[in-house]
Amino acid sequence: MKKIKYSMLAFLGLVMVFTSCNDSGKKSSGALASNNAEKVYVAPGEQDEFYAFMSGGYSGNLTVYGLPSGRMFKEIPVFSQFPTSGYGYSEETKPMLNTSFGFVPWDDSHHPDISQTNGELDGRWIFINGNNTPRIARISLTTFETEEIIEVPNSAGNHSSSFITENTEYVVAGTRFSVPVPQRDMPINEYKGNFKGALSFISVDPEDGRMDLKFQIMMPGFNYDLSHPGRGKSHGWFFFTTYNTEEANSLLEVNASQNDKDFIAAINWKKIEEYVNNGGGTIMPANYAHNVYRDENHTATSTMKKEVLTVDPTKVPGAVYFLPTPKSPHGCDVDPTGNYIIGNGKLSADLTVHSFDKMLAAIEGKKFDGEAYGIPILKFEDVLAGTVKSGGLGPLHTEFDGEGNAYTTFFISSEVVMWKLGTWEVIDRKPTYYSVGHLMIPGGNSRKPFGKYVVAMNKITKDRYLPTGPELEHSAQLYDISGDKMELIYDFPTHGEPHYAAGIPAELIAPKSQKIYKLAENEHPYAVTTPDGAKVVREGKEVHVYMSMIRSHFTPDNIEGIKVGDKVYFHITNHEQDFDVPHGFAMIGANNSELLIMPGQTKSLVWEPKQEGVWPFYCTDFCSALHQEMQGYVRVSPANSNIDLSWSLGE
Amino acid sequence: MKKIKYSMLAFLGLVMVFTSCNDSGKKSSGALASNNAEKVYVAPGEQDEFYAFMSGGYSGNLTVYGLPSGRMFKEIPVFSQFPTSGYGYSEETKPMLNTSFGFVPWDDSHHPDISQTNGELDGRWIFINGNNTPRIARISLTTFETEEIIEVPNSAGNHSSSFITENTEYVVAGTRFSVPVPQRDMPINEYKGNFKGALSFISVDPEDGRMDLKFQIMMPGFNYDLSHPGRGKSHGWFFFTTYNTEEANSLLEVNASQNDKDFIAAINWKKIEEYVNNGGGTIMPANYAHNVYRDENHTATSTMKKEVLTVDPTKVPGAVYFLPTPKSPHGCDVDPTGNYIIGNGKLSADLTVHSFDKMLAAIEGKKFDGEAYGIPILKFEDVLAGTVKSGGLGPLHTEFDGEGNAYTTFFISSEVVMWKLGTWEVIDRKPTYYSVGHLMIPGGNSRKPFGKYVVAMNKITKDRYLPTGPELEHSAQLYDISGDKMELIYDFPTHGEPHYAAGIPAELIAPKSQKIYKLAENEHPYAVTTPDGAKVVREGKEVHVYMSMIRSHFTPDNIEGIKVGDKVYFHITNHEQDFDVPHGFAMIGANNSELLIMPGQTKSLVWEPKQEGVWPFYCTDFCSALHQEMQGYVRVSPANSNIDLSWSLGE
Repeated sequence: MKKIKYSMLAFLGLVMVFTSCNDSGKKSSGALASNNAEKVYVAPGEQDEFYAFMSGGYSGNLTVYGLPSGRMFKEIPVFSQFPTSGYGYSEETKPMLNTSFGFVPWDDSHHPDISQTNGELDGRWIFINGNNTPRIARISLTTFETEEIIEVPNSAGNHSSSFITENTEYVVAGTRFSVPVPQRDMPINEYKGNFKGALSFISVDPEDGRMDLKFQIMMPGFNYDLSHPGRGKSHGWFFFTTYNTEEANSLLEVNASQNDKDFIAAINWKKIEEYVNNGGGTIMPANYAHNVYRDENHTATSTMKKEVLTVDPTKVPGAVYFLPTPKSPHGCDVDPTGNYIIGNGKLSADLTVHSFDKMLAAIEGKKFDGEAYGIPILKFEDVLAGTVKSGGLGPLHTEFDGEGNAYTTFFISSEVVMWKLGTWEVIDRKPTYYSVGHLMIPGGNSRKPFGKYVVAMNKITKDRYLPTGPELEHSAQLYDISGDKMELIYDFPTHGEPHYAAGIPAELIAPKSQKIYKLAENEHPYAVTTPDGAKVVREGKEVHVYMSMIRSHFTPDNIEGIKVGDKVYFHITNHEQDFDVPHGFAMIGANNSELLIMPGQTKSLVWEPKQEGVWPFYCTDFCSALHQEMQGYVRVSPANSNIDLSWSLGE
Repeated sequence: MKKIKYSMLAFLGLVMVFTSCNDSGKKSSGALASNNAEKVYVAPGEQDEFYAFMSGGYSGNLTVYGLPSGRMFKEIPVFSQFPTSGYGYSEETKPMLNTSFGFVPWDDSHHPDISQTNGELDGRWIFINGNNTPRIARISLTTFETEEIIEVPNSAGNHSSSFITENTEYVVAGTRFSVPVPQRDMPINEYKGNFKGALSFISVDPEDGRMDLKFQIMMPGFNYDLSHPGRGKSHGWFFFTTYNTEEANSLLEVNASQNDKDFIAAINWKKIEEYVNNGGGTIMPANYAHNVYRDENHTATSTMKKEVLTVDPTKVPGAVYFLPTPKSPHGCDVDPTGNYIIGNGKLSADLTVHSFDKMLAAIEGKKFDGEAYGIPILKFEDVLAGTVKSGGLGPLHTEFDGEGNAYTTFFISSEVVMWKLGTWEVIDRKPTYYSVGHLMIPGGNSRKPFGKYVVAMNKITKDRYLPTGPELEHSAQLYDISGDKMELIYDFPTHGEPHYAAGIPAELIAPKSQKIYKLAENEHPYAVTTPDGAKVVREGKEVHVYMSMIRSHFTPDNIEGIKVGDKVYFHITNHEQDFDVPHGFAMIGANNSELLIMPGQTKSLVWEPKQEGVWPFYCTDFCSALHQEMQGYVRVSPANSNIDLSWSLGE
């Protein structure tokens, strides 16, 4: 162990060396800078060519950028409370954050993946994983709102997620941390042989995208780091990297770095799907939330699911194999043809490329190198397609340009290396500033990459921008890959901690982007579709205010008869039917956020007045020349007051 | 009233006409676009020239941008919970959001203002107002963290805030909505003559910036919209626009637009300061929170203050005057010389410029035009310096370039108009896309503007960027003003709903930006400054985990003896002492956010485990090549378990 420890320290030392440079030495000079300026400049009145959906990481959200400009167009709240719009605070959206642990106001979103048809991006939905309290979300690319979140039971650290199969049959979620399944009180140091790693296959309805947890494969208690689907010839398979095959439970930086090789797990999900469709698998009790938001009533509901179908992989012969892969592999990427599975061993200098064809042949020939917990291990040499002698350190992730080239990030040596599929030769390498994690090429994890740009998502920022105290945003770098070599053309900061991103040509999404919600189709039970429907209704200590808003007043805007101790629900409908005319609503002293309400939409906010007085509310979104006049008052009387409810506008 | 209503509708009609254009017609063409591209391009390795601190509006935060690139470098949480870093969720930061109404997780931040010395930006702190639940925050421009928040009692809609006097003697907060003072149960329609508008002067300690509410002036029950300090010759005065001098309580878009002129209130605060220093004013009971965050222990405390010194302006002769100003004036801006006070009457086509010299002369000559609630009204003609025949509609705000020019935004006609101080002639006008609110010139509201750029903050975005469904970010536009005319050079989206911004040359802030917190100086009571100090302590049902973190492990990382029903406090100290090496901490299923912990800092998160089992935690910020190994487990036993507390690393 001493020796191992030393090698780890050596690695860490390298990290220091490679990331301590404080000056990139890049100064823009004349024609070259001018050329790059023009490449990234999107002039007023013009628009970007690509959308880049970047995970928010520890913001829990999904951010929408334009390429090549690097401008952020929206932060879509997904797993975290978002005071800006009231997501997770309004009555309609609180259920979105319900889990088996109760209301969880935060998560760590990692890997967005856009829905596909025939292995090509179709731009209907984007999926993303919640890493901490395991969940998968589906976001509409018509409304850019989170429509559905499903919790993943028996998982912990939902990291090898959320990747989709080539017709969006499944969105796949793999556990990072193995845990007792079912959970139980047991000594931590009895982990080895007793914990399990669940790989979950969540079906996606082809019409409306609704998710359902179809089955979970109960794998050995390793850490499942990343995954990607087979495509083309390998469609029907899914590949997961593993680390901590040592099954260490403490000081993993040393104890999980002992084995020279860990595994890529190859899962024939079509075989398992057939098995469960024929009655295979075991139903076990479980407890997980399924939260669905409907545009029709602008409201989410949360349902607790009570069981899950589990599959013991050793019971389905031919369904699961292990491909030995050096060393603690992180990224697990499949090339556009579906033949090459690249394991980026983060403690290895070289990249390991497995061949799907050779894997099938090895399985056919039963060329096994023993087994692990009953799962056959294929022989390394029999599945190896090639090794990329990268010359880099700390490889993490690989994407593809559709022209036969692969691009791999190296965290420790801070660079992107471009290499050729099939010959494995390195073509180009460019530094990153600093310590790159994921990279993204639009469509780069599909059968049809769009190429043109590489976005490197860097983990360390240091001096790239004006300093902002000890805390810095992470940083992305944009490379032009339309020529023979990569060319660094821009740095732009990213919001939250982007891990992965998904890029897509704007033309596949922009034309169908929704502009308003139709008021006439509003099915919210507390909606007011004409101002004369506005009213205030008392039900015991609950008071429901049915309110409308339009430039530039609320109906009603004077309310009396509210008492200390009441629970007041403001249900507010925005009567605008023009694009980009939201209104906001805020109530002084509410222990709550605001509501930001889109045209045609109804949202509800709870206010529990604690003090007598006359208290104002107002519109928070500067909506018209008379926005400052868009306000109202609520009179709050003592709890024992006998003042009747009344409401008015302009009287 | 019918006639008034009609004219309002006509105004709104104009809004529609001017904002319904969906194509700016701007296409970049050849040399011009190339030139603009180079003007805004900041090449990799280079840095922006200015910081722009933009209010987050209904995000409640403050965002930090670079100019000319338009890139966002940080979102500083101020008045709203921020799941990304745990602000408002961690034990240390929850007190920052305490108010007299209890914990308020959101606000609406409007007007950042940088501290000044001798009327010039000194770059020490930036202040910003919370509009909804009246508060003023002070943010350090060394750490870029919110250090202090003071609630403002007797106020509602804290809008004409947070502007500072020229030596940062005071940060000033004016109420937008008048309310009963003290608050009491009374009919809303008895507003007129009974409500009050409090203008609060909060002193700022010249050494450490600590705020203290020195006095409140109890003004008539108008709406106080915006304000600016006198400077130079007018230092010692403060100017506030008013609207709703009609004192309407409902349908203000009609009822508060009746008077042809409202007022700018001129406050001689030095005279009032002298008055209260000599024992003047009335102490009244009040209840407001004063929240202070200390870097030394990384912890905020909240103190409830119990009284406030109020001043009746009619008791201080010569201290307060009204300057009649057409019509419903919004912005109230003072030029760099301090002589001109510009009232932007949003329902007026022309800009009204008052002269400070003429005002003094009129006061001297007692040229009054009656009084309002005992406050003398000066004669319009006697204080008028000039009128700018702008040709625009819906003027809102004015800033200055220090070269004798003023720039005014027009919301309805969507443009920035450049005009000359003294001659009042219009020099240039450029369209905005669309419906501009505030504008900002670096230093543009000080005695020494830096000029070079105008940033227009637009309220309507529509087609300026790729669409993102019904909800869009607001949009800024950057104009080069270094030539004779304004030149639109870039569009960039803004996060939240920026209202106002404060710009400053990078060189005044960047060199002193803090990089780490010194571990040796950490005074947090639960800090662990060496890993061997890590421990777990039970106090009844409370368990305190004293934990450290460093690349790439937690100490301890295995904890047993926790029971269902415990309240577990993780107190975590980041032992890194290098710049830009934060670590994060997340616990599966916690009804809480993560912690994002800067080098040398300690933060605490509460977790109440509800289910038996072995539950993982991990580092959320990709920190090293072995980041994925930075994890641990907590064993949770039944409530009646007798398993002893134990903790370990690597055993």
